[in-house]
Amino acid sequence: MTSRFPAAVTVVALIGLLMIPKASRADEGMWLFNNPPRAQLKKYGFDPTEQWLDHVRLSSVRFNSGGSGSFVSPDGLVMTNHHVGAGDLEKVSTAEKNYLRDGFHAKTHAEEIKCKGLELNVLIGIKDVTADVEKAVPAGTAPAAAFKLRTAKIAELEKGAADPEKKIRADVVTLYAGGQYHLYTFKKYEDIRIVFAPEKQAAFYGGDPDNFEYPRFDLDVCFFRVYEGGKPLKCEHYLKWSAAGSKADELVFVSGHPGRTNRANTVDELKYLRDTGYPYLLNRLNRLEVLLNSWSGRSEQNAQRAEEELFSIQNSRKARIGGLAGLMDPALMGRKEKEQERLQAFIAQGTTAETKAAADAYATVAKAEKVRAALIKEMTALENAGGFNSASFGIARTLLRASEELPKPGGERLREFADARLPSLKFGLFSDEPIFEDLEILKLSDALQFLAVTLGPDSNLVKKVLNGKSPRERAYELISGTKVRDPEVRKKIFAGIEAAAKDGKPYDLASLKDPMIEVARLVDGPSRALRKRFENEVDEPKRQAHAALAKAKFAMDGDKVYPDATFTLRLAYGTVKGYKEDGKDVPAFTTFDGLYKRSAEQHNKGAFELPKRWVDKKSNLNLKTPYNFVCTADSIGGTSGSPVINRNAEVVGLIFDGNIQSLVLDFIFDQETGRAVSVDSRAIVEALRKVYDANDLADELTGKKK
Amino acid sequence: MTSRFPAAVTVVALIGLLMIPKASRADEGMWLFNNPPRAQLKKYGFDPTEQWLDHVRLSSVRFNSGGSGSFVSPDGLVMTNHHVGAGDLEKVSTAEKNYLRDGFHAKTHAEEIKCKGLELNVLIGIKDVTADVEKAVPAGTAPAAAFKLRTAKIAELEKGAADPEKKIRADVVTLYAGGQYHLYTFKKYEDIRIVFAPEKQAAFYGGDPDNFEYPRFDLDVCFFRVYEGGKPLKCEHYLKWSAAGSKADELVFVSGHPGRTNRANTVDELKYLRDTGYPYLLNRLNRLEVLLNSWSGRSEQNAQRAEEELFSIQNSRKARIGGLAGLMDPALMGRKEKEQERLQAFIAQGTTAETKAAADAYATVAKAEKVRAALIKEMTALENAGGFNSASFGIARTLLRASEELPKPGGERLREFADARLPSLKFGLFSDEPIFEDLEILKLSDALQFLAVTLGPDSNLVKKVLNGKSPRERAYELISGTKVRDPEVRKKIFAGIEAAAKDGKPYDLASLKDPMIEVARLVDGPSRALRKRFENEVDEPKRQAHAALAKAKFAMDGDKVYPDATFTLRLAYGTVKGYKEDGKDVPAFTTFDGLYKRSAEQHNKGAFELPKRWVDKKSNLNLKTPYNFVCTADSIGGTSGSPVINRNAEVVGLIFDGNIQSLVLDFIFDQETGRAVSVDSRAIVEALRKVYDANDLADELTGKKK
Repeated sequence: MTSRFPAAVTVVALIGLLMIPKASRADEGMWLFNNPPRAQLKKYGFDPTEQWLDHVRLSSVRFNSGGSGSFVSPDGLVMTNHHVGAGDLEKVSTAEKNYLRDGFHAKTHAEEIKCKGLELNVLIGIKDVTADVEKAVPAGTAPAAAFKLRTAKIAELEKGAADPEKKIRADVVTLYAGGQYHLYTFKKYEDIRIVFAPEKQAAFYGGDPDNFEYPRFDLDVCFFRVYEGGKPLKCEHYLKWSAAGSKADELVFVSGHPGRTNRANTVDELKYLRDTGYPYLLNRLNRLEVLLNSWSGRSEQNAQRAEEELFSIQNSRKARIGGLAGLMDPALMGRKEKEQERLQAFIAQGTTAETKAAADAYATVAKAEKVRAALIKEMTALENAGGFNSASFGIARTLLRASEELPKPGGERLREFADARLPSLKFGLFSDEPIFEDLEILKLSDALQFLAVTLGPDSNLVKKVLNGKSPRERAYELISGTKVRDPEVRKKIFAGIEAAAKDGKPYDLASLKDPMIEVARLVDGPSRALRKRFENEVDEPKRQAHAALAKAKFAMDGDKVYPDATFTLRLAYGTVKGYKEDGKDVPAFTTFDGLYKRSAEQHNKGAFELPKRWVDKKSNLNLKTPYNFVCTADSIGGTSGSPVINRNAEVVGLIFDGNIQSLVLDFIFDQETGRAVSVDSRAIVEALRKVYDANDLADELTGKKK
Repeated sequence: MTSRFPAAVTVVALIGLLMIPKASRADEGMWLFNNPPRAQLKKYGFDPTEQWLDHVRLSSVRFNSGGSGSFVSPDGLVMTNHHVGAGDLEKVSTAEKNYLRDGFHAKTHAEEIKCKGLELNVLIGIKDVTADVEKAVPAGTAPAAAFKLRTAKIAELEKGAADPEKKIRADVVTLYAGGQYHLYTFKKYEDIRIVFAPEKQAAFYGGDPDNFEYPRFDLDVCFFRVYEGGKPLKCEHYLKWSAAGSKADELVFVSGHPGRTNRANTVDELKYLRDTGYPYLLNRLNRLEVLLNSWSGRSEQNAQRAEEELFSIQNSRKARIGGLAGLMDPALMGRKEKEQERLQAFIAQGTTAETKAAADAYATVAKAEKVRAALIKEMTALENAGGFNSASFGIARTLLRASEELPKPGGERLREFADARLPSLKFGLFSDEPIFEDLEILKLSDALQFLAVTLGPDSNLVKKVLNGKSPRERAYELISGTKVRDPEVRKKIFAGIEAAAKDGKPYDLASLKDPMIEVARLVDGPSRALRKRFENEVDEPKRQAHAALAKAKFAMDGDKVYPDATFTLRLAYGTVKGYKEDGKDVPAFTTFDGLYKRSAEQHNKGAFELPKRWVDKKSNLNLKTPYNFVCTADSIGGTSGSPVINRNAEVVGLIFDGNIQSLVLDFIFDQETGRAVSVDSRAIVEALRKVYDANDLADELTGKKK
């Protein structure tokens, strides 16, 4: 969902930049904690108190590596998915100890392993700053100037609220596509230790083949512990465990961080995604999947090094294929067209300030989408660094840009260098997570070839970047020549940059003669120009148009709406419920028994091989224990690791996936067959006790520990 | 290399349509048997006699499924690669017996299994018909008319030489890019039975990861037997076995069917491939690889059904990546530019008929390449059937076109329906090889999505094809609704088509109301129009330009040249020789010992798992036996399965791959590091006797059988 270095976000960028509300129906919506779905919950006879809401919010955790989690014990124990923790498990693994593959269990606090570069956030405050932000941009300001003014105001608000010493992070969150701005303050935690993970083969049983499918049999769970001052954090708020679990048709809630939805996209935006954005992204994902898959096959070491990135690519690929399938469905597109026509008709009446302001909004969006389509290739290759796909380039560019941005006033900087964001940027930049030279050469060779094809091998920029070499030769030269993979070198350079910035000067990076920094410099002019054009001709006009549309929609439908997802904390609700597929009933629950049956059917091979422990301990297990279940709660990528709780705010499950039918939820809610998939709380405890001999941890979860 | 149904050739089409000679150097060249490299062989003190050449030619076999082979016993035994025979092994496999995976060994003739739809050809005659073809096209004829006249003359020549009753096939082969036309007559064999195959894991040890790499450890061998009149064929010509094998630096020959080279491509053509053709094709291959790989992971049955197609895609992908890497090398492109400048300077002198005729040739090619780039997407989606990727569509379109083409005179038909080609077309069309409905739905869903993205989901043609459904729904409807997957239905329809054609009428296919045939009809107009445009504006002008360039080159360099590869029989030569890589020596030979070492390093897992038999029989083997070796002989895809022979025309090896450095041979010969990879004759016999208990077969090969 998010990533430390710009180079790494390439493949997930360029999709869905803006959000807008829509009227809710059924169990729809990812609601704000300060605007919960009270009206919708009436039919369940449940009205959450402020206390309930605060308790759930303060028990919820955001993984800045992308994902959700929750406190589940008074001693700072955090539950999330194995696939959310996978990157961290990989980073602490060694040639001898592969924790991602084999799992991990700390029997004592002393055995817990400290993560590299992992930051957790807890949302401690929400303040509506819409008026402040709007005041900073006088009506009628041109897009470029408006963008600058708004960015400056947001940076000022964030800086005012942040407190690096107290580890308070502040982000202004844009909601309702600019209809509202909320200032979120977070408590940041940076000393996070690994407590327990099952084997990847248990967590991701069925692998990529069964990903997004149902029925499922996955123990996709992982426990961390938050430390403060070198000791386990004492939590006032944490979720208690439900021993009983859930029942079919029971009301449940999901508290998590859905990443991004596009439900307010106009038909032009959906057609952009359908005709240009998704097909282009899928080409990129396919290419990277084949590259890493093929390299992984050469040796076990390769496979281990590429595993996490490959998984993330396969996961995105499958999600996008599902999304594109939805966009290709004429019935769905027809529904979106009808919805849009209704709002267009309302706007056409043009009787209020809101409708008048939205008169040109659809045309503005349509025009912006044309620019977006025209820029996608170059944006992907340059600003999103697809043409330089490597951690080394990401670091080099961050250093280069830091030396240029830090001397400027905070409000005039590129957004990621704003004062409030600097601590997180540095935390990531200084991380000592391993970067493998061979994998870097592989990726950069491929990326330089991609760059050459995108811009044309005979273009001046490509010729300058390749410097008379073939992509492979040049990649080898750059990766073996750069020093930026050494964290100590990075720290030293950054300290120099900060010192120079205090005098208002850029640091003399050129004297380092680092080949990767010099390549970053070569492309930075064109790259920044593209980004500026994208911001001025796509982002900003769309932001304004969507704000106008959002307000018109408010005017039409009232305030019973939720904003599109923004990787900030939301509350969803629904019931535990199966569905129909090809005329057949798919039941809500699976059991351990089903796991062993699936394994037998597939001859216990490949993605369907059971970990040895699960084979050996089978007779210990109550095979009727519910293992995974589905519910109707509105969910999307980023919700991974969210707790599923009952009315008493007790954990009954842990979201880890959506079925293939739910992939359309990016664009439109569907309660017929779209489902979130969870691990059952009963299965977690049963497996901890009977398979992993982790009674201590099970006791801590269930409150049985003294 | 070739494929039965047009739909299936999609991914390998659109690349390299024309060929031209170039001056030879080093051990370069894939030479014609009627113009062997006598001058080049002088340095080895070897001058092949006509008898030697005839014997080798008549011992050589072409697999029309794509690949080469040779007779290796007087009883019709044919040796080729396991990967050439893989499609046939798969077709005769069942749910219970997976011969592709587990191998096969017929202890007696009676146990030999008859192949489905496999045709072998032996080249029995070569006649130069250049004058006849040229006479048919008066000078100054416009391209479209010239194409028609030439096609008609070629069809006439082929029909005159073919003799369906005697199983004589005749093809006019275009050489030197139209500089020469040779009429090849082949003896066709259609009763081919499987004698022996190792486990795929032994044949393709190291799998896709080690494909195109070296050192290697593969027993990529497979034996078939040709039957005639229900009995094993008695061969006058077959290659004897060399017990001694080869030595480093020894002169060796390769007699096989290189598929296609692009060595006479102009710089504009190479840039087309570099900038458009290869990147586009790689996108297609990546997409199909991910699709089949992901589906294969869902179950063992899926994996078995998709295995052969997936392998072919991975193989193409790796080859194209290697080729593109070569094209991206400025040194290589510089060499091609220099070569071209030399010919351009010669043409610019303009003193002879040849140079005058070639004056505009480069400009003509450049113009044609622009059209080619403009048409690639639609050609891929429609005429190459990428938008309908399924065997069902291929059959439906063949039936549709047959009903339209057969009533026409042979010379006016689409080429594949010419009289001389009809028997092969029918043989393929009537094959009862299994077509799996689930795999068809998967591929067609993806293909219809590809079609929609290529032409635009809102285009009229796409709307008509999808008929208001989503790609997935429509694919299910078409695949479950069509009857063409039943071979009996195909036969009946085709008989009706032939009967109607005799009366000069198209058959009334519409009355069948077959949904797939109706879809084929929907797109056939636009598809034929595209094909015609491609033929008139790309193929034909390029054919003429290349013929002119070829003649100018003849005028410049004399006749010591070989034509680009055309999947017809050629003779290459070279020496057994290692090479240097990253400064390190790569020796020419590997041994069985190396196989067991590679397995141990990779923990005997995945692509590196040894078949059980190889584990059990290790102690039987002489581990010092040479296993694979490399030689400098000029080779390319299609050469797979070719025998490597010594001066005495004895088998010393069996070509099965090229190293990664050899992938550039598509465009330019490289003897520095480019190598063909072979199985050693000694390893074949040692493995047959010690691992497979196949002494009978080893005796037959080595002439020890009574």
